[in-house]
Amino acid sequence: MIKIGVIGYGYWGPNLVRTFAEAQQGTVVAVSDLDPKKLATVNKRYPAVRTTNDFQDLLRDPEIDAVAIATPVGTHFEFGMAALKAGKHVWLEKPMTETSLQARKLCDEAAKRNLVVFVDHTFVYTGAVRKMGELIKSGDLGRVYYYDSIRVNLGLFQRDVNVISDLAVHDFSILDYLLGEHPVAISASGINHFPGTPENLAYITLFYDSGTIAHVNVSWLAPVKVRQILLGGSKKMITYDDLEPSEKVKIYDKGINFTEDPKQIQEMRVGYRTGDMWAPKLDGTEALRLGGDHFIDCIINKKTPQTDGLLGLRVVELIEAATSSMRGRGETVYIQKSEKQEKIA
Amino acid sequence: MIKIGVIGYGYWGPNLVRTFAEAQQGTVVAVSDLDPKKLATVNKRYPAVRTTNDFQDLLRDPEIDAVAIATPVGTHFEFGMAALKAGKHVWLEKPMTETSLQARKLCDEAAKRNLVVFVDHTFVYTGAVRKMGELIKSGDLGRVYYYDSIRVNLGLFQRDVNVISDLAVHDFSILDYLLGEHPVAISASGINHFPGTPENLAYITLFYDSGTIAHVNVSWLAPVKVRQILLGGSKKMITYDDLEPSEKVKIYDKGINFTEDPKQIQEMRVGYRTGDMWAPKLDGTEALRLGGDHFIDCIINKKTPQTDGLLGLRVVELIEAATSSMRGRGETVYIQKSEKQEKIA
Amino acid sequence: MIKIGVIGYGYWGPNLVRTFAEAQQGTVVAVSDLDPKKLATVNKRYPAVRTTNDFQDLLRDPEIDAVAIATPVGTHFEFGMAALKAGKHVWLEKPMTETSLQARKLCDEAAKRNLVVFVDHTFVYTGAVRKMGELIKSGDLGRVYYYDSIRVNLGLFQRDVNVISDLAVHDFSILDYLLGEHPVAISASGINHFPGTPENLAYITLFYDSGTIAHVNVSWLAPVKVRQILLGGSKKMITYDDLEPSEKVKIYDKGINFTEDPKQIQEMRVGYRTGDMWAPKLDGTEALRLGGDHFIDCIINKKTPQTDGLLGLRVVELIEAATSSMRGRGETVYIQKSEKQEKIA
Amino acid sequence: MIKIGVIGYGYWGPNLVRTFAEAQQGTVVAVSDLDPKKLATVNKRYPAVRTTNDFQDLLRDPEIDAVAIATPVGTHFEFGMAALKAGKHVWLEKPMTETSLQARKLCDEAAKRNLVVFVDHTFVYTGAVRKMGELIKSGDLGRVYYYDSIRVNLGLFQRDVNVISDLAVHDFSILDYLLGEHPVAISASGINHFPGTPENLAYITLFYDSGTIAHVNVSWLAPVKVRQILLGGSKKMITYDDLEPSEKVKIYDKGINFTEDPKQIQEMRVGYRTGDMWAPKLDGTEALRLGGDHFIDCIINKKTPQTDGLLGLRVVELIEAATSSMRGRGETVYIQKSEKQEKIA
Repeated sequence: MIKIGVIGYGYWGPNLVRTFAEAQQGTVVAVSDLDPKKLATVNKRYPAVRTTNDFQDLLRDPEIDAVAIATPVGTHFEFGMAALKAGKHVWLEKPMTETSLQARKLCDEAAKRNLVVFVDHTFVYTGAVRKMGELIKSGDLGRVYYYDSIRVNLGLFQRDVNVISDLAVHDFSILDYLLGEHPVAISASGINHFPGTPENLAYITLFYDSGTIAHVNVSWLAPVKVRQILLGGSKKMITYDDLEPSEKVKIYDKGINFTEDPKQIQEMRVGYRTGDMWAPKLDGTEALRLGGDHFIDCIINKKTPQTDGLLGLRVVELIEAATSSMRGRGETVYIQKSEKQEKIA
Repeated sequence: MIKIGVIGYGYWGPNLVRTFAEAQQGTVVAVSDLDPKKLATVNKRYPAVRTTNDFQDLLRDPEIDAVAIATPVGTHFEFGMAALKAGKHVWLEKPMTETSLQARKLCDEAAKRNLVVFVDHTFVYTGAVRKMGELIKSGDLGRVYYYDSIRVNLGLFQRDVNVISDLAVHDFSILDYLLGEHPVAISASGINHFPGTPENLAYITLFYDSGTIAHVNVSWLAPVKVRQILLGGSKKMITYDDLEPSEKVKIYDKGINFTEDPKQIQEMRVGYRTGDMWAPKLDGTEALRLGGDHFIDCIINKKTPQTDGLLGLRVVELIEAATSSMRGRGETVYIQKSEKQEKIA
Repeated sequence: MIKIGVIGYGYWGPNLVRTFAEAQQGTVVAVSDLDPKKLATVNKRYPAVRTTNDFQDLLRDPEIDAVAIATPVGTHFEFGMAALKAGKHVWLEKPMTETSLQARKLCDEAAKRNLVVFVDHTFVYTGAVRKMGELIKSGDLGRVYYYDSIRVNLGLFQRDVNVISDLAVHDFSILDYLLGEHPVAISASGINHFPGTPENLAYITLFYDSGTIAHVNVSWLAPVKVRQILLGGSKKMITYDDLEPSEKVKIYDKGINFTEDPKQIQEMRVGYRTGDMWAPKLDGTEALRLGGDHFIDCIINKKTPQTDGLLGLRVVELIEAATSSMRGRGETVYIQKSEKQEKIA
Repeated sequence: MIKIGVIGYGYWGPNLVRTFAEAQQGTVVAVSDLDPKKLATVNKRYPAVRTTNDFQDLLRDPEIDAVAIATPVGTHFEFGMAALKAGKHVWLEKPMTETSLQARKLCDEAAKRNLVVFVDHTFVYTGAVRKMGELIKSGDLGRVYYYDSIRVNLGLFQRDVNVISDLAVHDFSILDYLLGEHPVAISASGINHFPGTPENLAYITLFYDSGTIAHVNVSWLAPVKVRQILLGGSKKMITYDDLEPSEKVKIYDKGINFTEDPKQIQEMRVGYRTGDMWAPKLDGTEALRLGGDHFIDCIINKKTPQTDGLLGLRVVELIEAATSSMRGRGETVYIQKSEKQEKIA
């Protein structure tokens, strides 16, 4: 039974406590938060769980195997590094850290100490994303031509991070999972409509050596909520609408066929292929539960999580690159190939 | 009665012939095309209309007041200039020309001769776009924060122009009409997935001095057809779905309110306002018919068309700038302020 | 080459003339209508087609093999009977006749003379309905539990027939085609909201001996247009939305499984099965073209049309029964088993 | 502070306990259920609430002002009558009782003792239904022509009640609230596809003296979930889609205008009016919370609930009438005008 302490009981912390409390091979033993009212809520709901306003209490507790950090991103590095140095496995909310340098240091520290770092890029554990991954890995989709995501709604405006860090972060982790390839360049544009606040909408293009192109459209200022991804392959094309109650992922047997006939090639004759559409049943298991169980399994069996620190690091690099490009009105930012990135499967 | 000759009876020409044939104050007297089969079709449907395989016949005909040019874009400049020099008013399909230099020359020639140049940016004459224009002009929408368009489908791959010239051209003309402001910079990215062909998908961001940002997502390689525009203002927000049979334009009384309270400002507290939604009845008159009547009216009454040569020129400049940025992987391209552009209302 | 005369050039007649004019093995030689303006339109569009204001001219013309009757339903019997007596094959718009007695007489006359009677129940020739038919015939759907149709919109109010005759007629022909079974009873309700006019909305339930139940909801007074059918089988379930531009027919691998375990049966434990959804590509050939070619083929090769006079008769019987039940506020009307009905495949 | 005991902690009971526990002027003091596991859950979540497996304990407790009964419908009469005789106000889940006779007896007993009977027809307290009610009451909708509801999904098959009692019950209460008129006749049809089980789909038409017609389509055997109501008035028409996350209620300025011109009347010329569509913002307060507060308010201030016993009785009468008609394959069942019904506002 892996014993877990949770740091931060704000927006997401309660979900982590619930998830680990219900886990088969893990349990929550302590929660820390600065707000006594929040700790009182924990006491009421989970009388057996200890509470404290000092996260150090969790790190000092030899009974605790792992800590889950659900605090503002600005504290992730400090809390995460302290936890690793105290010998704890670490679960970090997304994004992993404010800077890629911090993420790299956490990865190094964890590697040195043989500890698990798990970054909560929850979408990677959804039935929809895993189904798309299967279709790519099996070759059914063919070569991936493009990934095009729109992720917009009204609010919630964040005060400490921009909309890339808040929303595009999901697409960056999904892309890393689906493509197994790191982009070589990024061009982004965006704007903050309200002086003194972080950018509230952004458009990001990611370029890959393989010829795949990805685009992410994120906004806190849209009148309607949209969560839609188009994924185009040479054999099949996919739409993924996360707001659909069922049939989230639809696979279209559609595409284009360029003729082999040289005369027709010259004339750019294109054949359009349209066939059946198919919406596979998706695994409906809650993604957070799968992620939680996977974290515990990685601790017990010394495995590397699907969403490990290196994935977290790569995502932070993309946030940095996209933000930098955005502030240069789309200026291309080239991504350095680092040792870490080469480790992508 | 304005007498019109139509050059080119391919994809769009038949619509022009039908439109001018049914006009109150105009008529079609001649059609030219290189393909005798197409001319035979004209003869059958419109026995009174003369046909020829030499467009010069139309220019030499003193009876003809105006010519409408519906040929591939590569021929627009040659045909348009010849027509102006022959003293004819000119209707040009979009985009106006291949290069902005050509467009500028046509504008100059027409100005010198006091002839009307009309560019067929049909969307400007739709009930939906005009309704959005009204809402901006009346101040109901408030300050325009952003315009975000997605215009994708499977095909038709063009052989002579890229997807920006084929699809984004609509958004460029709509933006010019709605905003009455020329962008100062563009960043675009895109790709051709099939070697030797024009780019088949593109993402374009346009930056405006007023702080408005616009984004256009166009593709010939999407599994589903989407024609959706989000238009965000400080007072209202709009969705415009051109594929809806009715209620294409929806106006949301939604937005955000930053508090005036200094303490709350520091905490970035944002209030979200959500109210009624309203779908105004739109004028259902066919846009092409409105455009055709407007062209004839401009000739008769010596007016400047809503979609005149200068608008056509500005759109071609944006196509050039976007294509250039796209080939530089998003490198910012700044738009020169020219004499012509300053004339925008 | 089957030579066809068309009687009536009002709302639907032009479609018939176009269809037969473009047929491979048939052609239109004459059109009759009382309105000289309509005949002038025919002359302009089809100079080779003779026109007359006397339908008898068509019947007297020995060159004409078949007549297509697209006049108000009140004249179908008179024109149809005269045509049969003149030895012509007959195409009748739906519904076949005003009364089932009239329909029966036409069937008898045609049988006596070995002439083809085709009733234009166009939906039977659509790709969507034929796909549903395949799924039933192949057994993929399992036992048919129910058919549930909603077919509503605003207008067009008819002056001579009620909404059952105008709209439910489509469902009656689809049901006949899909189920190959005639209902044993009908219960209908409906209302005319405007005194002196035919009923403008109606709800009809059809009971079948096999246990299938069908329901049809039709209205001329709905704010939105809906064309939606649910078709439930023991193995699969279908939705058919005729207004979808693509993916009109969706097949759901859903259903319920009653347990075999006697203890659970007692407790009415029901298992729900949900699997993939699948939208097959449908044949997009225009239904009217298929129907037209089929009519001509039946004449040439002495076949019985899919939508023959007996199907037309059965549909008229259902309109009569439903209207009668509706006027009795839902009173059950039992359908007589007649010799004709027994001939259903 | 009104002290409430809840009988039954199965499917709906937990919602009642939560609702009353959070009420401003009421609280939950005791819960009874036969299942000790369920009581243990109560103890864990609400340590201050007493639990018992004998509902009589609640009735004997002088501290308790009111009981809420959330047990199978077959027990409603027994528990409700016992509670009233013990002097308790009563909240009953829908439908109120198995038979209208039982409902009438409960109404009489409550009237005799001046106790409140509240039936939990929750939809009456939703923002959507109240908005529709406002539009009718204000006259904005005009004369109500029809109400047409479709309420279908896959499951949950009930063992003790048919689909009318489970799903149409919602429409019966909404109709009572919206129209303030009791139907004079009902015609229903339906079927059980699985021998020995209650009917799993049903189609019900309700006839009103005012000329309004209502139709309800309910099923446990549909591949998709639909919750859609059309409400047609002489001035406006409404669609209400309860599954829409926002804009559930849309008001269409659509209708038909019969001409006053006698000649045109003869020709049945109908004018169609189509104008704007408008989706008002709805009160998003949870309906159950509003209902709970209303119940408590009625107890404190001796008011009659919106969904009182008489409304509950009228709904049970409709369930009985519809079920009876359904078993007669649509035979019209006339509703007796009783003293109770005359009390409808």
